[in-house]
Amino acid sequence: MRSISVIGIGETKFGKLDNYSIRDLINEAGNKAIEDAGIEKEKIEALYFSNFNGSYWSTQSHMGALVSETLGLGHIPTLRTEGACASGTLALRQGWMAIALGLYDVVLVGGAEKMTHQTTLIVTTGLASAADLKSEVSNGATFPSLFAMMANRYFHEYGNIRDEMAMCAVQNHENACLNPHAQMHKKITIEKVKQGVPVADPLTIYDCSLVSDGSVFLVLAATDVVKSICKTKKRLVEIVGTGHAGDAISISGKSSLTTLYATVNAAKEAYKMAGVKPLDVDFAEVHDCFTITQIINIEDLGFFEKGKGAKGVADGRTARDGIIPINVSGGLKAKGHPIGATGLSMIYEIVTQMRGEAGERQLKNVDIGLTHNLGGSGATCCVNIFKGL
Amino acid sequence: MRSISVIGIGETKFGKLDNYSIRDLINEAGNKAIEDAGIEKEKIEALYFSNFNGSYWSTQSHMGALVSETLGLGHIPTLRTEGACASGTLALRQGWMAIALGLYDVVLVGGAEKMTHQTTLIVTTGLASAADLKSEVSNGATFPSLFAMMANRYFHEYGNIRDEMAMCAVQNHENACLNPHAQMHKKITIEKVKQGVPVADPLTIYDCSLVSDGSVFLVLAATDVVKSICKTKKRLVEIVGTGHAGDAISISGKSSLTTLYATVNAAKEAYKMAGVKPLDVDFAEVHDCFTITQIINIEDLGFFEKGKGAKGVADGRTARDGIIPINVSGGLKAKGHPIGATGLSMIYEIVTQMRGEAGERQLKNVDIGLTHNLGGSGATCCVNIFKGL
Repeated sequence: MRSISVIGIGETKFGKLDNYSIRDLINEAGNKAIEDAGIEKEKIEALYFSNFNGSYWSTQSHMGALVSETLGLGHIPTLRTEGACASGTLALRQGWMAIALGLYDVVLVGGAEKMTHQTTLIVTTGLASAADLKSEVSNGATFPSLFAMMANRYFHEYGNIRDEMAMCAVQNHENACLNPHAQMHKKITIEKVKQGVPVADPLTIYDCSLVSDGSVFLVLAATDVVKSICKTKKRLVEIVGTGHAGDAISISGKSSLTTLYATVNAAKEAYKMAGVKPLDVDFAEVHDCFTITQIINIEDLGFFEKGKGAKGVADGRTARDGIIPINVSGGLKAKGHPIGATGLSMIYEIVTQMRGEAGERQLKNVDIGLTHNLGGSGATCCVNIFKGL
Repeated sequence: MRSISVIGIGETKFGKLDNYSIRDLINEAGNKAIEDAGIEKEKIEALYFSNFNGSYWSTQSHMGALVSETLGLGHIPTLRTEGACASGTLALRQGWMAIALGLYDVVLVGGAEKMTHQTTLIVTTGLASAADLKSEVSNGATFPSLFAMMANRYFHEYGNIRDEMAMCAVQNHENACLNPHAQMHKKITIEKVKQGVPVADPLTIYDCSLVSDGSVFLVLAATDVVKSICKTKKRLVEIVGTGHAGDAISISGKSSLTTLYATVNAAKEAYKMAGVKPLDVDFAEVHDCFTITQIINIEDLGFFEKGKGAKGVADGRTARDGIIPINVSGGLKAKGHPIGATGLSMIYEIVTQMRGEAGERQLKNVDIGLTHNLGGSGATCCVNIFKGL
């Protein structure tokens, strides 16, 4: 397979960005990525852009063309990808495919979401559209209630891990304090998580990820053309493995509530392509839409045995100084979750760390990183593995 | 490039299908395509699914996973593509890329839209989201007014072609009368078109395509695996050329109102890959969202010189017995325009004709066919060229 690297990255701050339209978010992150890569805009041959629900929240569909016009990309082909909260890495997957096939040498991959200008009702309705309208939403289920069912089932199968779930939130908040782009800069405690406003038992408000505005762009290039198209002296980060798998949209259509087979299968594909094992991974960004999801993910990705993820968290193995640091960026829980940008923000963190540009939250000796991006209650998953060159 | 063929096709009737939910549409067209290919569901390795605005019209996003559950496709990867009215052939493009790269041998490509259950206001608002909210929709523009500007500009540059535009509608209605899946089975006249209810001068209601429900699915496979996976005796239809290009989302961002450079560039890529010229094409399905669009398209695709498309239509050269039959299916104008399915329906027609299964509307000696699918006011375009094996 042709070697493909991330050569440029750009990210806005995440949060309630009242002064930004979705076009403003795109403009800032897109131009940052192109500038970071040090290439002429004319070198960009295609755009793969992720947005989850701007058609509902911002009355704006057709965002590939919107980005192209906003960034002045001329007549290049554009595509919008959507797969709920995994939309971002679906764009990455398509961009990777296009270069791997040899259609293009350089593509722009981006994502954005503008959510905080809407009412809670409209945000919740838009989010719930990623679940099954017929069997779930029409019966009153929204994502907190679906993931609460998963948490309760996990307690039933493997024991009560309430404190360890809370510890995921505590760690992610602590990490976010060191990330200037993060929405939350506030430390919390296990007690505070457990005593938070109940959302869907056992989840409190502190077990849930955030509603955010934000945008991230990446420039991808065939590694063999990098020298001829730009003068970047920055470390190249190669995409060495990519996996994509799915499952039924509804919870009731899945064969397990505590193992997400979309994750298991996407990870299997990515590990095989990369030729690495879970133990080879130096650090990872995983999809912590809820605290229970982080526990399930680190097991499904093979970092911990099934049923042992919570203990791994409690023992500090996923902390910044642990054996497998998880969500050093702050994760969806504390960095934020502007849906279309979320998966790409994970890759932004991987590249930032591998370049040694992570400032106060810089990890040591990071050469292999993994991102895990999940859509719905585990119905779409992309896993990507990166290696610093 | 690896040879890839369409080996199965399925389509619902198009129209106001009150008894169908979007899930019902998917179920019918998806199963038809799988049955038509004569393959086991287990052979399908990935799904690329197109939907334009179900998140707004049906409160249902994440439709890749919805399709997977509805059709019982297990853990295969799924992606939803969106690029306004070109969403359908964007799904085709991604499916083609994935097989060409060797990721998969067999993929399902589908599209659906459910529109007619909504009020005119909500349908119009949803459609307008494919234009630029900031410079166009916020100032009162919707697609009929944008394409009316293009028509008026065309009149200014090349002369008044009111009658020839009307002739496009007349021909497409006539063709649709022979297509059992078409929404309209009603002949019209040039006078009737011109005297129709004005929508945006010079366009009347008869110059505009329809609001429709419908779904189309295609099974694609690497040509070299077909014999080992199914017993189909039907003619294989190879995708010999595919092109994808874009432009600014807004009319004001484009360099011309009468030449759509997304079409010109996508066609150039497709013709080059296929190694064919416009004159080699036996018949084509082109994006007649409005009658003026059909005239501009047949010029931009190279079937007629710039400014001569209208005369070609008036001379009967695009009729069923003409030198380059256009929209034998009835087109968006009379077969219908369920947006996510529209581009794939064009391919459904190409395959149906090449197999000799088109009944009363069957063309003779068709070996090379072309589809042209446009998004917005010419901001996204996919052109595909097919050859019967």
